[in-house]
Formats: sequence, structure tokens, C-alpha cells
Amino acid sequence: MTNTRQAATDDLQALAEATAAAMWERDHAAQALGMVVAQVGPGRALLRMPVRQDMVNGHGICHGGMIFSLADTAFAYACNSGNQVTVASACQIDFIAPAREGELLQAEAIERSASGRTGVYDVTVSGDGGKTIALFRGKSHRIGGTVIPGEDRSQ
Amino acid sequence: MTNTRQAATDDLQALAEATAAAMWERDHAAQALGMVVAQVGPGRALLRMPVRQDMVNGHGICHGGMIFSLADTAFAYACNSGNQVTVASACQIDFIAPAREGELLQAEAIERSASGRTGVYDVTVSGDGGKTIALFRGKSHRIGGTVIPGEDRSQ
Amino acid sequence: MTNTRQAATDDLQALAEATAAAMWERDHAAQALGMVVAQVGPGRALLRMPVRQDMVNGHGICHGGMIFSLADTAFAYACNSGNQVTVASACQIDFIAPAREGELLQAEAIERSASGRTGVYDVTVSGDGGKTIALFRGKSHRIGGTVIPGEDRSQ
Amino acid sequence: MTNTRQAATDDLQALAEATAAAMWERDHAAQALGMVVAQVGPGRALLRMPVRQDMVNGHGICHGGMIFSLADTAFAYACNSGNQVTVASACQIDFIAPAREGELLQAEAIERSASGRTGVYDVTVSGDGGKTIALFRGKSHRIGGTVIPGEDRSQ
Repeated sequence: MTNTRQAATDDLQALAEATAAAMWERDHAAQALGMVVAQVGPGRALLRMPVRQDMVNGHGICHGGMIFSLADTAFAYACNSGNQVTVASACQIDFIAPAREGELLQAEAIERSASGRTGVYDVTVSGDGGKTIALFRGKSHRIGGTVIPGEDRSQ
Repeated sequence: MTNTRQAATDDLQALAEATAAAMWERDHAAQALGMVVAQVGPGRALLRMPVRQDMVNGHGICHGGMIFSLADTAFAYACNSGNQVTVASACQIDFIAPAREGELLQAEAIERSASGRTGVYDVTVSGDGGKTIALFRGKSHRIGGTVIPGEDRSQ
Repeated sequence: MTNTRQAATDDLQALAEATAAAMWERDHAAQALGMVVAQVGPGRALLRMPVRQDMVNGHGICHGGMIFSLADTAFAYACNSGNQVTVASACQIDFIAPAREGELLQAEAIERSASGRTGVYDVTVSGDGGKTIALFRGKSHRIGGTVIPGEDRSQ
Repeated sequence: MTNTRQAATDDLQALAEATAAAMWERDHAAQALGMVVAQVGPGRALLRMPVRQDMVNGHGICHGGMIFSLADTAFAYACNSGNQVTVASACQIDFIAPAREGELLQAEAIERSASGRTGVYDVTVSGDGGKTIALFRGKSHRIGGTVIPGEDRSQ
């Protein structure tokens, strides 16, 4: 890459990290569920969450809603990574294998498409040993405003 | 209805209620999220959940994962209402309107189709004043065994 | 109903029928597939299509794409019934039972939600004897303009 | 790769090609729509289809059902590539950009997950210049029997 393109890439990475920090500070739900934002970048995010006792049913199987919440949160960090406020309009999840109490789940979100105000993101949720737990696809919609307070120059 | 058909209907209703009670006792996740099972019946369930402060992001908007969890739980009580252990294989949710902190959410699940081991259930999530918050569709898969311990006569 | 409300209802029904007629005239795909628009109304449509030999695979089972096309077309007539040009942004289909060559399929579309430019529609595809063949859910997006040429007073 | 592993890979490739040939011969619907199977391999397929005049509406925009049919057919060739009869149980499609009359569509299907009788496949539909037209995700279910007649040794 030329120096100019490298600088632009660095800027997008720095913006993604600053946006994630601003989101995290007020994301009570993700904090309460014990999630960790491991990595973010332009159009992508990697989160982790251990399966706690209050996330399982009587058979020690993690509730689908908790797996969805992890995937949905990774999707949110990926689709907001450009500091434009973006919300989920629809999500679809296929449950592949059960997750157990104590297992460390990882959700990796990547952008598949972005056009106009709309985007499509794929999230893969995996468990111990890299086993696929769920495949998630989310549709995003940009609603205006910036994630980082006081940064909105577009309005 | 004849007396015999009425008795059969009563039996299915009693089975749905006994199954829900057995599920609830060990459903740590639903309990931790403050859900209440308001009604159950054959192939249907009605649950409620108030939106707590730890379920919202910094704008006071309920996390999509929490709305999904409520819908998914209503789906679980509906598709297990015949005391046959049944799990979600896939779910799809459309988010229609945001839910606010303090709002009381209601999720009503009904069976749309059941054939062989597979079923399709629709869940409508509504908020204060009956406003539609989300539309959810879940696919279920019966895996064998009974929900109520010691009731399995099929194996 | 009062006379005024009845008149408004009659107007919406007449608009739905006029819009459907304008759509049908240029809908080469639906015509080529042998579809018939049996009924339309505000937010709803009922279409029929017989399963032809060129719609089946070697086992005499109707191609999923043909079942989807019927459902998607019913969805299109329902979501355009107010004469505002509206397109599908996403669709989801669950295949419940196979359809056979010679079977007459029926697709009934109803509006489940409409807010702003976006709507959610459910379509039930049934076959001979009313058997459920597929359940379809579509998300619509209004893009501006009118279906009936020369009727656009909003621009 | 060792010679043994290379031979096994060659066998799977040959099986995928023989299975596709057997499917194609009786796939009236795909033939009638002018599709071409460009490539197949274990768990993957690449199909092409030009958008004909009878596939568009009055605005020259390709019908969603035709785009779905192409994606669904690519999915079918990918999930049957091991010569085990496999059907679609559910599909989801996001429409990203319109396709025009005369445009050559390409659908590339890849296996994302396979466990037990169930699989998940992603299909990307692109148009002229590689523009993304639609993103499709399909769930497959193996029902028993072989695609190639007289090859079933498992029953």
C-alpha cells in the first residue's frame, strides 16, 4: 500500500476501535451477560462470552436466546464500526450444535454486503475446539447520527 | 363437544400446564431475565417480561437479544407443550419498533404447522398499548424423551 | 359502518383491484408460470398456480423455486395493493410438504405489520385438500412512485 | 497430499460430477429456466442463468422468484453432491440489488455446516461486473436414497 492508503486504513481501524469503546461504555446488556469485545475493525467484530449457570436450562444446555444475544452483539459492533448509528432490522439464526455450561463461546461477525443504508452481516458462533454452534445472518439499517457523542458533522 | 372430546381437550390442557411447570423449575435463564409464563395450552404459550435497566443500551432501547430471548422462550413452551422434548433448529426475527426501559413485553406463540418431528411456530412480541415490537418465526425439532421426568413410556 | 367509512373501504378495495390489474398486465413472469390472481384487497392477495410438468424434478416433486415464486408473487400483490411501488427486501420460506405435478397450489398473503416504508407479510401456500405446503414471510420496502401509470400525485 | 488422499479427493470430485449429471437429466424446471451448471464439487456448485424477457416485470426488473430459483438450484446441486438424496427444509434470501433483462446471473453455493442429516449452505448471486444481487442461505435435510439410480447400497 502507499502511505496515503495505509493512513486511510489506519484511520478506519482507529475509528472502529473508538466507536466500539463508546458503544461498550453504555451497553449494559452485553456487560451483564459477561461478554468481551476481543477485536473490532471496519465491518467486523470478534466477541467472546462464557456460558454461565444462569444461561442454561435444566439439562445444562445454553439457552438459544443467549447464543443469539452474543451473535447479535457481534453484529452490532461490526455494523456500527464506521461510527454511523445502525440498528438490526431482521436476524436469522440456525442452531447447529448445543453449547454447554462453562464453554467459552466466540462470535465472529463480517460484513457481506453494504449498499445505501442497508447491510448484511454473517456471524459464526463457535465453541470449545472451534466447533460451530450457530450460524447467524443479520440485516442492518442506518438511522442517522453518530455513535461517538459530539462527532456528528453530517446533520 | 361430547363429554369424551371435552375430556381429551382437558387432558391436553393439563399436560401443557404440567409440562410448563416442569420446564420452568429448571429454566434458569428465563427466571434470571424476569419472565413470567402467563398462559400455556396445546401448541401455544403467552409470556411476559418487563424491560429492565440491564437489558437496554445507552439510549434506553431494549437489546434485540433480550426481545429474541423472550420470543424464543415462548416458542419453547409452545412447542414442548405435548411433553415431548423439542428444540429450536432455526429462528428468524423481524424487529418492527423499539422497546423502552420499563415497558412490559408480551410474547404470544402459536403453532402454525406440525408434521413428523418438525414444527413451525409464530411468535408476536408486543409492548405497551399492544404495539407490535417484533415478529418471530421458529422451527422446532423433536429429539426424543419427555419433559416431565419419569413420564417417558415411548422408549 | 357509517356510509362514509363504507365508502372509504370501498375505495381501498377498488384501488387494490385497479393496482392488481396494472401489475398483472406487465408481469410476464407470473403469466409465464400460469398463475391466476383470484382475489386482492387492502394488504392481502390470493393467487393460484397448477404444478406443471416443467416445474417438477425427476421424482414429480415441484421445484422449491416455483413454490417460492408463487408465494413471492402473492406477497407482491398484497404489499403493492395501496398503489405505492413496493419491493421485497428479504424473504424466508419453510417447506412443510412436497407438492406434486398436477396439484393446484394456492397462496394467501396477509399483512402482519406496516410502519413507515417497511412491512411484513405472511403467505401460506396450500395444496389439494388444504394441506400446508410452505410458510413464507416477506419483508417489503416502499421505494416511491405509483403502480398505476400517471397516478402519482406525491412527487 | 499423499497419493491416497489425492485419490480420495478425486473420487469425491468424480462423484459430485456424476451426481450433478444424474440430477440435471431430470431437472425440467432448471432446464426450462435456461440454467447452466458451470461447476460442481464436494459441497459446492456454480450455476449461471441469463435473465430472459419472461423473467421480468414491466420495469425490466427480474422477478425475485427467478433469482431465488437460481440460488435454490445451486444449493440443491451443492447439498446433493455426495449422491445422498437431500432436500431443502428452509431458505432465506436477502435481495441486495435488482437484476435486469439480459444480465447473466451467477450463483455460487458453498457448504457452511454439515452435521447428521442436516446442513447449512450459503449462496451468493451476482450479476454483470460481479455486483452482488442476492444473498441466500438454505438448510438441507437428507431423506435417504441415492441420486444416481441403482447406486444405493445403504438400504
